[in-house]
Amino acid sequence: MRIEKLRKIAVKDNKQGNFAVFNPANIVYFTNFSGATALLIPEQGEGILFVSGTNYQQAKAEVKGFNVELIKRGESVMQKIAQVISDGRLTIDTLPIETWRSLAKAVGGEEKLEPAFGLFRKLREVKEPGEIALIRQACKIADSGIKAAAETIRPGITQREIAAEAEYAMRKSGSDGVAFETIVSAGVCCAFPHGTSMNRTVEEGDFVTVDLGAIQQFYRSDITRTFIVGKPTDKQKNVYQAVQSAHQRALEKIVPNVLASKVDWAAWRTIDKAGYGDFFVHNLGHGVGLEVHEWPVLGPDSKDVLQAGNVVTNEPGIYIPKFGGVRIEDTILITDRGAEKLTNAPILTP
Amino acid sequence: MRIEKLRKIAVKDNKQGNFAVFNPANIVYFTNFSGATALLIPEQGEGILFVSGTNYQQAKAEVKGFNVELIKRGESVMQKIAQVISDGRLTIDTLPIETWRSLAKAVGGEEKLEPAFGLFRKLREVKEPGEIALIRQACKIADSGIKAAAETIRPGITQREIAAEAEYAMRKSGSDGVAFETIVSAGVCCAFPHGTSMNRTVEEGDFVTVDLGAIQQFYRSDITRTFIVGKPTDKQKNVYQAVQSAHQRALEKIVPNVLASKVDWAAWRTIDKAGYGDFFVHNLGHGVGLEVHEWPVLGPDSKDVLQAGNVVTNEPGIYIPKFGGVRIEDTILITDRGAEKLTNAPILTP
Repeated sequence: MRIEKLRKIAVKDNKQGNFAVFNPANIVYFTNFSGATALLIPEQGEGILFVSGTNYQQAKAEVKGFNVELIKRGESVMQKIAQVISDGRLTIDTLPIETWRSLAKAVGGEEKLEPAFGLFRKLREVKEPGEIALIRQACKIADSGIKAAAETIRPGITQREIAAEAEYAMRKSGSDGVAFETIVSAGVCCAFPHGTSMNRTVEEGDFVTVDLGAIQQFYRSDITRTFIVGKPTDKQKNVYQAVQSAHQRALEKIVPNVLASKVDWAAWRTIDKAGYGDFFVHNLGHGVGLEVHEWPVLGPDSKDVLQAGNVVTNEPGIYIPKFGGVRIEDTILITDRGAEKLTNAPILTP
Repeated sequence: MRIEKLRKIAVKDNKQGNFAVFNPANIVYFTNFSGATALLIPEQGEGILFVSGTNYQQAKAEVKGFNVELIKRGESVMQKIAQVISDGRLTIDTLPIETWRSLAKAVGGEEKLEPAFGLFRKLREVKEPGEIALIRQACKIADSGIKAAAETIRPGITQREIAAEAEYAMRKSGSDGVAFETIVSAGVCCAFPHGTSMNRTVEEGDFVTVDLGAIQQFYRSDITRTFIVGKPTDKQKNVYQAVQSAHQRALEKIVPNVLASKVDWAAWRTIDKAGYGDFFVHNLGHGVGLEVHEWPVLGPDSKDVLQAGNVVTNEPGIYIPKFGGVRIEDTILITDRGAEKLTNAPILTP
């Protein structure tokens, strides 16, 4: 069914013929199987999934609706693809330049190849009900990770220990792994959106930012909460409330058919009015699905238009060097009526 | 110093001029910083690390020996690189075809660009003492993960719970995260080298394979142990002992200047003599460092020659459909005298 979708979009984009898929998340999208080398979707007939010896038996047992073909030792997948399509053109998702050249050689020239990453991006950015159900579950699990972190944070504990408890709780709640490397940052390190070494110890008066996600059958979630250890200062309160207002404002702006850049702007404007415009140093959000960063992009340079079925993050932040920072992030489903929060861990306004 | 190394190797390979580095692990290799977009190493003078707003303040605070330059909103890093090198040629590590083309456009044509991934691979495959110390530490942590898994495995427990305990133990021992998605497979699923869904419950008589790794300051480790729950059958004993013999045989063969394919062959031959040659379906091993799969490659198609300073896995396995499988894996340092095991969790011969 997803292949039919691809063919439909491709015709609209004047891209036809044979497709070769190499990006691991794209391959999972069509086959629900990770561990294949390439997927060939010919103009007509069944797709062929090329798998090396390591995962061949598993692919044969688990993959439905595709021919599974072994890449034997010494064989080149590019040669095998070229043999199947013989004299045809090939639309691909993406390849590194080295392997692009070896595929071009195999098919008889670069002019036979057309990269069309955007086509696959378009397919994946609108989620089906089954995908949404898995992301929803991954979001619930991420909430449990935030809960465990909140219960662990206290003066004297290291950032790494907080990560340990949060990840352990997510595994116990059924996560298939971490959606990305968990970020726990405390004190002045909160001024770095991605945190830094995990050795730091939490101290009284620190901001502590926890950014994590879970996985359910390949689908991911993404949530951030910032905590304050002990009694907040007025400046901490102001910064936190500015981020929270921006987060709320963006949530209200997220509806189908709105320009993603407008939502980003609404959040930025809220933070700017509070006096911190220079300190919101990243985009407001990104799509979430088989990868933790996908499409659409919610940022000032984005040309994307939000659609029902998108799953995106809403994550404004303020980062003040040598002071610290705050980020509040939820994973959001865009429905016909607006935005639905899929992550629901409490936001503890100081 | 690593830049000097790059320049030396490049001269030998007749690749000179300006280098642009895009692969995240390569950027970390030179800068010890993750979160930059690109690194430009000009023919003369200091390198320039291009960083977007998200990580700019952190890069300014943490990166030594490079100029850190902000990629402002709306700016293109490709344009910025093209401006610095003006009329020169550019040797790059790797890029996806889409961004390769945008860089080519910025510098005035593909003919000005030369991909040279092998150059960076060569640099990274021989580890320095500081890198080895971090991998050694990551290996000790991985041992603690295997110990926790061994203490957890019992009939009735799920694969996911075993992963939870192993990962928790590694975090508690100081891991910066998981080196890759932990594999726990039980019973017939052990016939799939990469396991499958984590929902399965361990039963009496199962093989249980646990494959995991830790991270220390970006450097990774990789270890696998297979356990038997309860009393082994004769076939289970035979399969296990064949893998263990191959693992031991390969360890003896790992010395500097040996062809990697010969070591793979020695392991395969041992397994084949035991009657399971068709069931050793993957390479014997791979390099480990900033990435969990790097160089050299120990496999039948490899042209690599092992050198002192390589860190590689030794991981023979036998995978029998509908029966199960066994893999034993260590991370190994190649020294002037031979092979040193960096992972040391006990191998429990049945």
